Amino acid sequence: MENNLDSAFHALADPTRRAVIGRLMDGPAPVTELARPFEIGLPTFLKHLRVLEQGGWIRSEKRGRVRTCHVRPERLHAAERWLAEQRAIWDARTDRLADYVETHLAAEDRR
Amino acid sequence: MENNLDSAFHALADPTRRAVIGRLMDGPAPVTELARPFEIGLPTFLKHLRVLEQGGWIRSEKRGRVRTCHVRPERLHAAERWLAEQRAIWDARTDRLADYVETHLAAEDRR
Repeated sequence: MENNLDSAFHALADPTRRAVIGRLMDGPAPVTELARPFEIGLPTFLKHLRVLEQGGWIRSEKRGRVRTCHVRPERLHAAERWLAEQRAIWDARTDRLADYVETHLAAEDRR
Repeated sequence: MENNLDSAFHALADPTRRAVIGRLMDGPAPVTELARPFEIGLPTFLKHLRVLEQGGWIRSEKRGRVRTCHVRPERLHAAERWLAEQRAIWDARTDRLADYVETHLAAEDRR
């Protein structure tokens, strides 16, 4: 799980790879169609796809001469879960701070 | 913004850095205290802090001989927003698929 998150977040650290994920969230696509919007060579693009595959974000299948990529939404869930955990820690802290301030103000009032 | 996300997600691609973020979400801490749970040398740990700073996740301030680190929660928000966008694309797609299936089943019924 920890290793998974390493490669999952590493895969997101690039605008081309993030754009590919966004495109595939909308539905599967052949590699040639996926590559079209990007002004980079196909070998470089294929490297990005490999990083996305290693990060668990996409899978691909070949039928005849066409390789089609699919997004794996469970990876999105794992990333969301990690961020939600951080958000929960942060919220608990701000709640504690708010409690502290309220208690402090109440004590001031009693003086 | 795009560049920001590159370095923000790159910073998350390491378990030590994720743990530091989790710790700081709970409140600021001096570098020496932050480093304690990790079985790595201080120079390596300081490199991780630098990556977190470059990724916009933390800031630090020095008072006397103590450097204290703080989390920057706005970075969490930026990462959450990107994931939420992907989630929205995915949900729109599954809604379309559900509509398609329902329409298809209704057409079958009419035969």
